[in-house]
Amino acid sequence: MKIQRLAIIGVGLIGGSLAQALRKADAVVEVVGCGRGKPNLEKAVELGVIDRYTHDIGEAVGGADMVFVAVPLGAMKSTFQAMRGNLSPNAIVTDGGSAKASVVRDITEAFGELPSNFVPGHPIAGTERSGVEAAFPTLYQNRRIILTPLNSTNPDALAKVDAMWQLCGADVTHMEVEHHDEVLAATSHLPHMLAFSLVDVLAQMKENDEIFRYAAGGFRDFTRIASSSPVMWRDICLANREALGGMLEQFAAELTRLSEILREGDGDHLLEIFERAKAARHRFAD
Amino acid sequence: MKIQRLAIIGVGLIGGSLAQALRKADAVVEVVGCGRGKPNLEKAVELGVIDRYTHDIGEAVGGADMVFVAVPLGAMKSTFQAMRGNLSPNAIVTDGGSAKASVVRDITEAFGELPSNFVPGHPIAGTERSGVEAAFPTLYQNRRIILTPLNSTNPDALAKVDAMWQLCGADVTHMEVEHHDEVLAATSHLPHMLAFSLVDVLAQMKENDEIFRYAAGGFRDFTRIASSSPVMWRDICLANREALGGMLEQFAAELTRLSEILREGDGDHLLEIFERAKAARHRFAD
Repeated sequence: MKIQRLAIIGVGLIGGSLAQALRKADAVVEVVGCGRGKPNLEKAVELGVIDRYTHDIGEAVGGADMVFVAVPLGAMKSTFQAMRGNLSPNAIVTDGGSAKASVVRDITEAFGELPSNFVPGHPIAGTERSGVEAAFPTLYQNRRIILTPLNSTNPDALAKVDAMWQLCGADVTHMEVEHHDEVLAATSHLPHMLAFSLVDVLAQMKENDEIFRYAAGGFRDFTRIASSSPVMWRDICLANREALGGMLEQFAAELTRLSEILREGDGDHLLEIFERAKAARHRFAD
Repeated sequence: MKIQRLAIIGVGLIGGSLAQALRKADAVVEVVGCGRGKPNLEKAVELGVIDRYTHDIGEAVGGADMVFVAVPLGAMKSTFQAMRGNLSPNAIVTDGGSAKASVVRDITEAFGELPSNFVPGHPIAGTERSGVEAAFPTLYQNRRIILTPLNSTNPDALAKVDAMWQLCGADVTHMEVEHHDEVLAATSHLPHMLAFSLVDVLAQMKENDEIFRYAAGGFRDFTRIASSSPVMWRDICLANREALGGMLEQFAAELTRLSEILREGDGDHLLEIFERAKAARHRFAD
């Protein structure tokens, strides 16, 4: 597979790394970047991530056979609206959004129907850094990419997006939209909410400077994800608010139950929870 | 300062590392280990961490001028009971328990009064590993040690425990018992509860294998502390249940409030929380 013209809408860590990986695999002829910040786009040209750029989304997608949308979830709908009427007839559109139901809804509303050449996707990769300077060609190596095709999705478009990610060294799987959103709410969105929220609660306590002074290594690891982009996470939480809201409520109830177990001094019950958790974590990580 | 005979009750990571650090500083003549597991104690002799061992606490503390108690919080009271009547008149006793009010209560009950030569302490150091084989002499280098002396604490005993930890390269501070327990509930006990609880909740979801399969790097960091010893954490949570229970309830209420903010789609409010948290974390960590 060779992409003739790849349009990257949003040239940051995610979009930039895809362009670099495809270039490295010799799987793309031309890369057009699109974004709002001129310095970032000029940097992207300078680094060889893209060949040229435009600030106009309609212009960027013109003549492209593959369009990758890597804008914040809150900007998806307006991005799709700007694309409408400017895509080549066979152009394939895919994205990197961390929630999928909202993206499917946004493109459907923007286009007036769900385009069959749209393949919703989510690369499970990233770092806390952002911008094209953070991009690197091996970001997706051995990382999971979840595609969430719908019944109406064109199988050829899906196969090409599959192939594109495999060329980046990624491990591609398919999942239903709703299932993706639940799995991600559990493993990513809820933990981020907990980390942000815990740091915020502690920061508002009296003598919080002292509190943070005694925060040891484990706490640093635990709250590292609270260093991620607040704007990106606001968008993700809002986009996946249904799945995430339910889990937050469920988890709050679980904590209330835990505080009752504590008050009762029920050590056996605590031990049972802790042992189950340790065993479960051991099954999936070091 | 030179300790003539150091008794280490509980020869694991914490107790073993203290013995190694003091030996390295040439600050101790003889180290007597005490514990229940024979293989661990034999290993400790083999590794040169202790000179000899006994399973009898009364015998271990006999003739010691410094006693360091590094047993699980749940074993503190019986350990102190076994010491009573066997200590040398000027022996100093200190400990490494992660909650301090409960240890002060335990020794007071065991001795019938609070001994003035007891200096409650808590080294903020450790790894997820345990046992004497995990011990190393630089564990306390540049780490914080909190001592929580009481009004009745003998100033000479406090000065000696201060000096002991400084010889290990640690940064020693003093704090009130209740304040220590609140700071630690916030920065350590609550995060551990959240990590154990989150992993447990996810492990009980349908298709939990799939959920964990898509858990990326951030989730691993976030839940690493759920690999810690379940028994140790049961003891810590029970020992500090007052401070911890209040914080759990407060945090559960905060999560419920967050789920309402989500339901209302109040992005500005979310952004405010996330930005405050990111800024607060930036103040204390990388």
